[in-house]
Amino acid sequence: MLITLTTDFGTSDWFVGTMKGVISGIARATRIIDITHKVPPGNLVDGAFALAASSPHFPAGTIHIAVIDPGVGSSRRAIALRTRNAIFIGPDNGVLSWAVREEPVEEIRVLNNEAWFLEPVSHTFHGRDVFAPTAAHLAAGACFRDAGDLVEDFVRLPWPALEKGEQSIRGEIVYVDRFGNAISNLPGSAIPPAVLEEGRLTTACGGRMLTLHHCYTDVPPGKPLAILGSSGLLEPAINGDDFAEQNGIEVGSPVRATWQD
Amino acid sequence: MLITLTTDFGTSDWFVGTMKGVISGIARATRIIDITHKVPPGNLVDGAFALAASSPHFPAGTIHIAVIDPGVGSSRRAIALRTRNAIFIGPDNGVLSWAVREEPVEEIRVLNNEAWFLEPVSHTFHGRDVFAPTAAHLAAGACFRDAGDLVEDFVRLPWPALEKGEQSIRGEIVYVDRFGNAISNLPGSAIPPAVLEEGRLTTACGGRMLTLHHCYTDVPPGKPLAILGSSGLLEPAINGDDFAEQNGIEVGSPVRATWQD
Amino acid sequence: MLITLTTDFGTSDWFVGTMKGVISGIARATRIIDITHKVPPGNLVDGAFALAASSPHFPAGTIHIAVIDPGVGSSRRAIALRTRNAIFIGPDNGVLSWAVREEPVEEIRVLNNEAWFLEPVSHTFHGRDVFAPTAAHLAAGACFRDAGDLVEDFVRLPWPALEKGEQSIRGEIVYVDRFGNAISNLPGSAIPPAVLEEGRLTTACGGRMLTLHHCYTDVPPGKPLAILGSSGLLEPAINGDDFAEQNGIEVGSPVRATWQD
Repeated sequence: MLITLTTDFGTSDWFVGTMKGVISGIARATRIIDITHKVPPGNLVDGAFALAASSPHFPAGTIHIAVIDPGVGSSRRAIALRTRNAIFIGPDNGVLSWAVREEPVEEIRVLNNEAWFLEPVSHTFHGRDVFAPTAAHLAAGACFRDAGDLVEDFVRLPWPALEKGEQSIRGEIVYVDRFGNAISNLPGSAIPPAVLEEGRLTTACGGRMLTLHHCYTDVPPGKPLAILGSSGLLEPAINGDDFAEQNGIEVGSPVRATWQD
Repeated sequence: MLITLTTDFGTSDWFVGTMKGVISGIARATRIIDITHKVPPGNLVDGAFALAASSPHFPAGTIHIAVIDPGVGSSRRAIALRTRNAIFIGPDNGVLSWAVREEPVEEIRVLNNEAWFLEPVSHTFHGRDVFAPTAAHLAAGACFRDAGDLVEDFVRLPWPALEKGEQSIRGEIVYVDRFGNAISNLPGSAIPPAVLEEGRLTTACGGRMLTLHHCYTDVPPGKPLAILGSSGLLEPAINGDDFAEQNGIEVGSPVRATWQD
Repeated sequence: MLITLTTDFGTSDWFVGTMKGVISGIARATRIIDITHKVPPGNLVDGAFALAASSPHFPAGTIHIAVIDPGVGSSRRAIALRTRNAIFIGPDNGVLSWAVREEPVEEIRVLNNEAWFLEPVSHTFHGRDVFAPTAAHLAAGACFRDAGDLVEDFVRLPWPALEKGEQSIRGEIVYVDRFGNAISNLPGSAIPPAVLEEGRLTTACGGRMLTLHHCYTDVPPGKPLAILGSSGLLEPAINGDDFAEQNGIEVGSPVRATWQD
């Protein structure tokens, strides 16, 4: 079995390693893969986006833990979601929701099987005491229904609205990656294929008017462009440089794409 | 078998990956878990604390390597400590000592079985040449006594003193984590349970008088509090912000907790 | 089987975890080890050096993926190199070349077996869509010849020239590590063994004249020295401090070592 971890714990402290120790003690043969631990502290949107971008590429049956959990120890619920292909475990604050935005959730359980938890459960580290052991028990073969009581719904983060015109679409930046590429919520699927194919698209972002290209090196070094990124979303970028920093772009910055049919 | 790694090597260079390559060549089936590689260069206290906080959560039989080793290549000894549950391997400079602060060490060996080392042993990278292969041989089933000669003692870092009054306890900050929570050496176990339960405790740190709460969100965002952290130690913190930075706190800063019975 | 990863993806985003998900879906039993993901964006030289320094320490049969790929999506080729001990996979831009600088390459394949790729192949993330699945198919037992067509040569980064005198050798800094040690291209093997043994070598770098020592602590804290590092190359360093930062050293800075026989 495979468990993935997405957290805002960073890698300076012992938090992530400790979760892996707990998992290994319960489900020794389970493999553990880090998606990222560098989500900015408490940033649900960044964590939700990273999990949603990565989780479709894991084999069926993978168990994904996401712990961006500013309300740890409060009355916020801990949940597990089961889809056809995967299980998602984390606080019920929306961090799991974008990963299942386009996939039916077949079963939702609130995590209240205390027999699975570490004893005593701390008020500040449910990654170690609740989420890791729950995932490990499931990886070791326990039934999903034993994770806790069935519930009807879970907290969903709103996906930023798209405003579609006849030959345009407006949205916003949803993630800035390590290279400074500014990933928008404008999906390639909302744009006519011929327009994409022929590059007849203008993307406006941060005061720049960007031409669509297939790859970064289609423009000279230092020049901006738009690209249809690896998640199928439009990305303002610069060949070899940091678009977001150079243009003051952050999550929420507006983007608009226009074309002529 | 399971081997953990705690180092100050960072993750920018190839040092950690190389240790894992060496381990995999000797003990291919061994799983390797990172505790942290972001210990500040040469900081024994931070490394000792991270290892001590994390190691109790690993399954019995785990082999822990810690390489914070400013004296690498000098005459400082390399050692292995065996407790009932684990083996600890590293330089004999105190970095291993807090992990065994509350557990009897059953056997101490100085690492001088050169047949296990990489050939030639460099003067600067014993993580690769001495510690990784020693741990790997043990993980592959070699006898602990073959690691080297029996010795009587090892270097221990002093644990900062606690000054206990009738209704007070003084100590200091021993670790600042990624979130800016300031972990003190004041153990919850030194405070009457009823006082903890009812939150009748005042913690003084960095000029702030902090009320004890169960979780960060018991106070409004931006407000400071004290919490009994996941290692059972009192932690001055701020809900959603960096207590240490905002109050000029670092390792060694004094803390005092007082209560009325 | 074992696959290693060397990239400039950083660890903040989901890129590395996603590659591991793809690998795990194709070759579930394969173990994956990170060499580093902190190569500065697009820095082929740093990536090539890290891979060359680490790869010799992995067991025979290891498959190494290196993705420092500023030309991703362009017409640059993707290749796989087979040596007696290992397979190297990445863009054909030189990033693989230093790892095989001293080892015969027995077979070179251009990666054009599209049946192995993810569908559709993005223009920006060949780590996920081309390199990870190719490595995974090979790890799962596919034949090397099925990776793609045989080609005659691949792009090699020039190794900085050494200028050898009778009692001197000149070269340059090729890597600065996390501790600020400045690794040069001056190999210990180019210096008479007796000179090294007796420390009769003076290394000039950044305006400092450095004496050769066996380990950092042979000089007082804060004092500079030269050391024969763990890759067999001369390293200007400071005991307990950052030589490169304190002396304005970067990759390409000149170094000269002189001795009297």
